[in-house]
Amino acid sequence: MTQPFDLSAWSQGHLDRVEQALSRWVGHGAPAGLGDAMRYAVLDGGKRLRPLLVLAAHEAAGASQPQAALRAACAVELIHAYSLVHDDMPCMDNDVLRRGKPTVHVQFGEAQALLAGDALQAFAFELLTPDGGEVPPDIQATLCRLLARAAGSQGMAGGQAIDLASVGVALTEDELRHMHRLKTGALLQGSVHMGAACGSLAYSAWQALSDYGAALGLAFQVVDDVLDVVADSATLGKTAGKDAAADKPTYVSLLGLDRAQAYARELLAQAHAALAASGLQDTQALAALADMVVRRSH
Amino acid sequence: MTQPFDLSAWSQGHLDRVEQALSRWVGHGAPAGLGDAMRYAVLDGGKRLRPLLVLAAHEAAGASQPQAALRAACAVELIHAYSLVHDDMPCMDNDVLRRGKPTVHVQFGEAQALLAGDALQAFAFELLTPDGGEVPPDIQATLCRLLARAAGSQGMAGGQAIDLASVGVALTEDELRHMHRLKTGALLQGSVHMGAACGSLAYSAWQALSDYGAALGLAFQVVDDVLDVVADSATLGKTAGKDAAADKPTYVSLLGLDRAQAYARELLAQAHAALAASGLQDTQALAALADMVVRRSH
Repeated sequence: MTQPFDLSAWSQGHLDRVEQALSRWVGHGAPAGLGDAMRYAVLDGGKRLRPLLVLAAHEAAGASQPQAALRAACAVELIHAYSLVHDDMPCMDNDVLRRGKPTVHVQFGEAQALLAGDALQAFAFELLTPDGGEVPPDIQATLCRLLARAAGSQGMAGGQAIDLASVGVALTEDELRHMHRLKTGALLQGSVHMGAACGSLAYSAWQALSDYGAALGLAFQVVDDVLDVVADSATLGKTAGKDAAADKPTYVSLLGLDRAQAYARELLAQAHAALAASGLQDTQALAALADMVVRRSH
Repeated sequence: MTQPFDLSAWSQGHLDRVEQALSRWVGHGAPAGLGDAMRYAVLDGGKRLRPLLVLAAHEAAGASQPQAALRAACAVELIHAYSLVHDDMPCMDNDVLRRGKPTVHVQFGEAQALLAGDALQAFAFELLTPDGGEVPPDIQATLCRLLARAAGSQGMAGGQAIDLASVGVALTEDELRHMHRLKTGALLQGSVHMGAACGSLAYSAWQALSDYGAALGLAFQVVDDVLDVVADSATLGKTAGKDAAADKPTYVSLLGLDRAQAYARELLAQAHAALAASGLQDTQALAALADMVVRRSH
């Protein structure tokens, strides 16, 4: 009876909805230059991993409140997009290429890039709090809480600050893991939390999905570090070898390539074990997304 | 029977609560460098006009939900503080002095300033969405909605983008007003909205308070433009004459000093008329804050 799960087919319909929603929502009503920069930063690019995690977790949690889940999927992508805009700026990573295109500050200037990032963060919370009855207020509040925590000083922004302070510094594996749990992991795990929050789960199932998100979030970064070494810029769509060139600590510099790859596989196994422990039925998409994260080539 | 309203006495107790809350909440749990930059940006400085507007509107709207109002007061100040941090950066206004102290990027470096601003914005929404029963979920959602709109591309960030595009450009009075309604006015009016949203008002009273906020928000900017011309840096606590030096359009450059001052008085009268039209009793603090905004010397 069991068919192999087709992630590509599952993703396509969800991606279409997310792309349409982002295109419909982002940058409209903004002053022209700002709106253009916001749309450039968000549209037509990216794997949309975070929105897919929101929607897969939403499915696992019973798929109620589809409008809330769609808004959550877009909101988390806006936070991701804003972080890339700011991270690419000259005072941070000074990167000129992103998703195969000039970065936002190269295209629109630094001041507009700064504002576009700021406006995208605000818009994420605006998307989560529509007027009227489309999304119940308690879900609006929960989604804002989860997103703010994932994005802020004890989440993504905090991880970026640790990253900043770690250039040329010898981190222990624990310190590196802590940095990545915040820098990349918090928003990936937050995506799972937000999708799950659109449904109503028993605590044990919520905790299992949260464990899945933590394992996947860390695996994502380990694989990123591996790809930074083994892939080329054309495949990545961004400048390869940047981390090593910048003397940033990575899993590869700390563990070596083989052990970093083995660690990614171990985290993948943890993610699958957490899904099994959740007791939930519709976790195929979450499982396939974890596989994709670890086996991707870019 | 009627005593003259003592704004200073009224403000003191509220300011103490706001300062204590900000000090208790901001930057804790963040990585050390980031937390320090966040606290530096927020604590020990500023007139706290926006928090006082929140609390005065909250009082006018019946003063229910005091914890929600305190959180709203702090959240709106965090948005204001983050906007100053980013606005002072070299790619924007390149200002080195703020509230008599070195600006955040001078003190902590540009990258940390960028992250601190980003983290402060996220933390504003985190403050509005506490766990547990302290603030009802529907008020949490409404406060997030109002703050996101006031801060985003159709509010403060949008106004900054218009400002950016307006250097050396001859704006009409309508265009200048539109810019300032977004850049400064949206967050000031948003402060009034957020305070009012902690209570439950009839639509006509809500609309009157909103009109008050709009008039006060514009008056604030007109007076700012006047002070940029007539005050010195020591009094302002920031670099005076910056706007004229940067060839930015201002109310003084457009209307001349006398007409700009008259316009500020006209907006003050509009603010008072709106309070009278609200039919609300406890509007003395809002009235006194409007007087203070127009009559201030810095």
